[in-house]
Formats: sequence, structure tokens, C-alpha cells
Amino acid sequence: MHYGYFNGTIAPTDQLAVGVTDLGLLRGYGLFDYFLTYNGRPFQWDWYWERFQNSATRMHLPLPIGKSETYAILMTLLERSIAAGAPADMAFRFVMTGGYAPDSISVERANLLILTEEIHPVPQIHYDQGVKVILDEYVREMAEVKSTDYKRVILMAQAIKSAGASDLLYQKGGEISELSRSNFFIVKGDRLITPNRNILHGITRRTIIQLAQNDFKVQERPLMLSELYDAEEAFTTSSTKKVLPITQIGELTVGEGHVGPKSKFLLERFNELVKNW
Amino acid sequence: MHYGYFNGTIAPTDQLAVGVTDLGLLRGYGLFDYFLTYNGRPFQWDWYWERFQNSATRMHLPLPIGKSETYAILMTLLERSIAAGAPADMAFRFVMTGGYAPDSISVERANLLILTEEIHPVPQIHYDQGVKVILDEYVREMAEVKSTDYKRVILMAQAIKSAGASDLLYQKGGEISELSRSNFFIVKGDRLITPNRNILHGITRRTIIQLAQNDFKVQERPLMLSELYDAEEAFTTSSTKKVLPITQIGELTVGEGHVGPKSKFLLERFNELVKNW
Repeated sequence: MHYGYFNGTIAPTDQLAVGVTDLGLLRGYGLFDYFLTYNGRPFQWDWYWERFQNSATRMHLPLPIGKSETYAILMTLLERSIAAGAPADMAFRFVMTGGYAPDSISVERANLLILTEEIHPVPQIHYDQGVKVILDEYVREMAEVKSTDYKRVILMAQAIKSAGASDLLYQKGGEISELSRSNFFIVKGDRLITPNRNILHGITRRTIIQLAQNDFKVQERPLMLSELYDAEEAFTTSSTKKVLPITQIGELTVGEGHVGPKSKFLLERFNELVKNW
Repeated sequence: MHYGYFNGTIAPTDQLAVGVTDLGLLRGYGLFDYFLTYNGRPFQWDWYWERFQNSATRMHLPLPIGKSETYAILMTLLERSIAAGAPADMAFRFVMTGGYAPDSISVERANLLILTEEIHPVPQIHYDQGVKVILDEYVREMAEVKSTDYKRVILMAQAIKSAGASDLLYQKGGEISELSRSNFFIVKGDRLITPNRNILHGITRRTIIQLAQNDFKVQERPLMLSELYDAEEAFTTSSTKKVLPITQIGELTVGEGHVGPKSKFLLERFNELVKNW
């Protein structure tokens, strides 16, 4: 069983509920964040907290609690969830909304929810064979803010499934930004290229860029669709996906169509890092 | 006290709550609708139901209940709310989300919420003096669908207030679409002009177009910012605003800067219609 926190109360997640005048529910006014623990410790906590704070500022929602208080809540949730039978490593999800609005539009005080969740790891076969994504002409509104706006990918669920794909790769006017919930990289020789505009700045992306410094020339810059044609490898990064190879983008086969050595190398570096976290 | 309905249960609104894996809350995947009763009867019910159904279809969410069952629920909510002391006329708010998702992304079955709410009428002084709006370069994603995505106007709340304005008028590339939660019209001579693209097709807009047929040439067409300069009158329409005159758009004074006779005329026609609804 997993425990969660809502506005000061800690309880089993299935006992938590949000009142119906919440602006996240009524008006889509909410932001979130999501990260894992390794060895019982929140991974890259400082970076996640910084990002969450930044999203909150950009959405004009003052955080109701500070960093150390939040960390203490994480530890309590971890402890209680494990005591109730949850596996030692889990995911944390923060959701902060515009709070309850009697007039259904004005922000008074944010609602803050912190959930622990089971990790849903990507099946090994996807790391072995790579995944397919399909292109979608779209750019996320306020892409830099981890708002709760994920309408697009849910709306496109059937199209993704029909194409035998696992996700969308967003592009607009030929410029690639990101996948629906993860970042995008290509490899060309010793260059690692990743878009820097209209993206959510992923913490795993940042971790990979750091891990790659010694072995690659990392370029954070606008990336055009046309550059996919001579990419040797492509992969996507996120908390749960880590470094997940992409071998097919719509009709285009990436490189040789199988998982390349550089994606594997970076996944290994990442796995080493988290093993000793 | 007001009553609401949630997935088959009827209870006082403040006793209703939504579980924390709801996709409206976690992912902004939700749609809604909102309408008033006059003389205890839902205003333009057939049109609202049609629109709600259309929004649901476009968001790939099958409606869990049909029209007559829904209408029976409305009647029960109305009755119970009035018995509990609510005024005879009230507002209904429908909110339908992607439902509970254990994996936080996949739709299984929609959650449907129907709330009754107190009506918040626009103060008379705004009808007497008109209101100010400010321009905002923005276009709603999936504007035709009444999704719960109202981030923009909440984000801009401080800017609206600082300008002494009451709302945003959206334009993109010089083309006007709508206000944040209502439609836009201008009057030039006997022409009534209202944008027809990138808008939510308001039921009050539709009602006004119908009421105006005999006295105006109604043009539903793209409307450019440049056309505001010789507009004689401007107004906005919505369930709660009815026909609300706009006398100031950013730095621009509309017409003579006071409420014009044609806006007044249309508001009177509207008030007559609802009086006998």
C-alpha cells in the first residue's frame, strides 16, 4: 500500500480525495513533478525541487511548504509505504493546483498533493529492440513548465497504438522539441544533439548531458527533422525510461534500425550512477 | 445548500470529492459545460447537451449516461437544492474527465460530475458603463472543445487586474477569436460581426445571432484587430454575462466610449426571451 500527503494530511493514497471546486480539476490549472527513489533516496532531489519551485513561480502559485519540510514528508511517506508493504524503491508525484475556488476561477491558496506510487519500469525488450515513435505537429503550451496539460498524448492514444508506436515525437514547422513525456537526443559520430527550445528541461536529460561530457560533444540547440536522416542513433530520456533507444520514427528507420552502442553506453553510465545513489 | 452528482451518487456538493488518480486532475484531461436555469428550467438544454456530446466525442470520451437520464438528474439536483434552501434559479456545471488511471495516463472510464451552483450575476454597473478588456496574443488549443484548459486567464489574472480590466480578448496574428470565457461581437451600422474561427461556439452567442436576425445583418467571419477602430459598439456574450458591453479594448476606446443602443437592444431581447423561458 502507498501513502500520500494532501494539504497537511498523510493517509493511504486511496483514502485521499480532492474537493470538486479544485482549479486543477475545473480549469486545468495545475503543475506537477515526478521522480524516483534509488536505494531509498530521492534521485536528484535538489534538481527536482528547483524545477518544481520554478514551475510554481511561473504559474504564480506560492509553495505552501519549504524544501526541508517537503523532504521530511517524503521520508515519512517512504517509511509508511514500506511499512505497509510497498517495495523499497518507489516514485513520488507532486501535484499542485490553483486550489479551491468558490467562484471557479480565482486562486486563493494552492492545493498540494504528494503521492507515492509504484514504479512502472519499461519492459526489457524495449531496451533490447528500441521503440517506435510517430511524429506529431504540436508544441506544448508553456513547455518549460511541468503543467498538468497532457491532453495531446491522451487524445492521440489510439493513433499511437494503431501505428504500433509507443509515443509521440513533437515537431512544429520542422523543428523537433520533445516526446510527450520525455526528452529527445540523437547521436552523430561523437556528437550528442538534443533540442533546447519548447521543451521541458528534464532532470534525466540534465543527468545524461553531465554523464556524457567526457565522451561526447554535447550540443543543446534547435534540431530539425531533416537531421534525423543521417542520425546514427536516437533515444529518449525520462525518470522511468532512463535512456530508451528509438529505432523507428514514423516511416524512418534510425541508423541501422537496431539499438546502437552509444545509447547502450549512456544507459550503462546512468545505471551505474543510480546503483550507487 | 447545493447538490451535485458524481458517477451515480447524489450528495451535497461539499461532500463530493474526486480520487487523486483522476486524469482531469493529473493530466488536465477533462471537458465541461455550464448553463443556467430560468424559471426553474435549464436554458437551451437541447443545444447545451448537443455541445457537451460534441466535446465528449472530440475528446474520445464516451458519455456514461444519455440525455433523458441526465435531464432527470438535473431535475433531482434542482429539487433537492431548492429543498435545502438554494434560490430557485441556479447554474449547472458538467465536468467530465478521463477518469481514474492507475498508470496516470490511460483512459478506462470517464468520471462525470454534475454540480449545481449559485449564479454569480455581473454587477449592474458593468451593464451601465461597459467593461474594459485587454488584448492577449493567444489562441486556445482545441478552441471548439469546451475542455477544462483555462490556464491562460488564471495565469494572466494579475495583468488583467493591474490594467483595471475584467478579461482578456484573444488575438493571434491580428485575428480576434474570443474572450477567455465568452464570445465577442462588434456592431457597425446594421452589421453585427462575430468571429467564427478558433472559438468555442457559445450557446448565448447562438441565441443572440438568432435574436438579431430581423434587425441586423449578422456576419460570422474572421475579424481583424484593424476592424476595431471603426466599430461603433462591442460586446461579449456568455451564460452569465448575457450581452455585456465592452467600451475599452486596451488603449482603444470603442465608439463613443459608452454603452451603445444596439448592445442595449440585444440585451433587452435576451432578457425578454429568458423571462418567458
